[in-house]
Amino acid sequence: MKRFEFWFEFASTYSYPAAMRVEHLVSGSDIELLWRPFLLGPIFGAQGWNDSPFNLYPAKGSYMWRDLERICVREGLPLRRPSVFPRNGLHAARVACWFDTEPWTPEFVRQVYLANFARDLDISRGEVLAELVRSAGGPAAAVLDRAGQPDSKQKLRSQTERAIALGIFGAPSVTVGSELFWGNDRLEEALAWARRDASQSD
Amino acid sequence: MKRFEFWFEFASTYSYPAAMRVEHLVSGSDIELLWRPFLLGPIFGAQGWNDSPFNLYPAKGSYMWRDLERICVREGLPLRRPSVFPRNGLHAARVACWFDTEPWTPEFVRQVYLANFARDLDISRGEVLAELVRSAGGPAAAVLDRAGQPDSKQKLRSQTERAIALGIFGAPSVTVGSELFWGNDRLEEALAWARRDASQSD
Repeated sequence: MKRFEFWFEFASTYSYPAAMRVEHLVSGSDIELLWRPFLLGPIFGAQGWNDSPFNLYPAKGSYMWRDLERICVREGLPLRRPSVFPRNGLHAARVACWFDTEPWTPEFVRQVYLANFARDLDISRGEVLAELVRSAGGPAAAVLDRAGQPDSKQKLRSQTERAIALGIFGAPSVTVGSELFWGNDRLEEALAWARRDASQSD
Repeated sequence: MKRFEFWFEFASTYSYPAAMRVEHLVSGSDIELLWRPFLLGPIFGAQGWNDSPFNLYPAKGSYMWRDLERICVREGLPLRRPSVFPRNGLHAARVACWFDTEPWTPEFVRQVYLANFARDLDISRGEVLAELVRSAGGPAAAVLDRAGQPDSKQKLRSQTERAIALGIFGAPSVTVGSELFWGNDRLEEALAWARRDASQSD
């Protein structure tokens, strides 16, 4: 079965609409969706950026917020510009990474994005994450405790290193084997690639 | 009549497929296409970049060349990675800017992009530009002479300043009034915006 690896970062604005629609998009195909949270901080840091490029480059940032607004209108998604940007998604990413195949994980991911970009909640806070795990159907206290353990921290570090090795430099991204697609506006192309690949290997 | 202002830079890779398809895309609509060459150099320079971000950030650059390759395959466009990147498009931009409404200009623009991204020619050279003007149906010697005059240089400078004032930070971009769209993958959305706008003001 062909794998569609969806790479996302909870602070990433364009990852929000992508995360909200990716499961529906891929469902009904023969393609397996894999959720791949990672951290952009180390990647941006290696480029000499200590902040989001949307803050460092104001013209690009202004455009992004307007573009995101148009996308959310089109997708019927709520959007409230976060009072803090970028928010620290480290703990949320550890949860999504360690528990990446739990039945509640996709809904947890969506709830985190809604918390950050529609509800203006601080997704770095334990109480906020606990509520989001619960609302997605997971055992909140056990999940947060487990996700804070050393092997969970290491798993997210390794996943970020794998992202870098795959050539990933931004979010959201999709990889199909070694083929890389970057951006919410490349999801359809990535899926078509996976399907073509799958039919060629039949 | 609603105006679709197409902003492009001859060194810009994603401007290539956009420039090749924009006239066909907009034709048949009630929308007026306006060709707006400008320079990214001063814009990038103001951000502290003295080179293309695709050279400064190698992971992004590698991705871009692969992404462009996929786009060109899909669009049926030839692509040969230029032996020099970015090429200096200053003289070509002066020609396209001063003569922006001549009947041969759209074809000249396309010929410059093909020269840069399919024929690997040095588009900064007068002989090359002369051939491209001629092949587009323009009076080459007179055009090149006229485009080198002070008022032509000033027109391109002013156009670049207007791009900055509109919030443009990359190419290709489209503006419909004050609404900005960035990227080859936003042309359809920009056109839909112009059409909606036009029908609302009827």
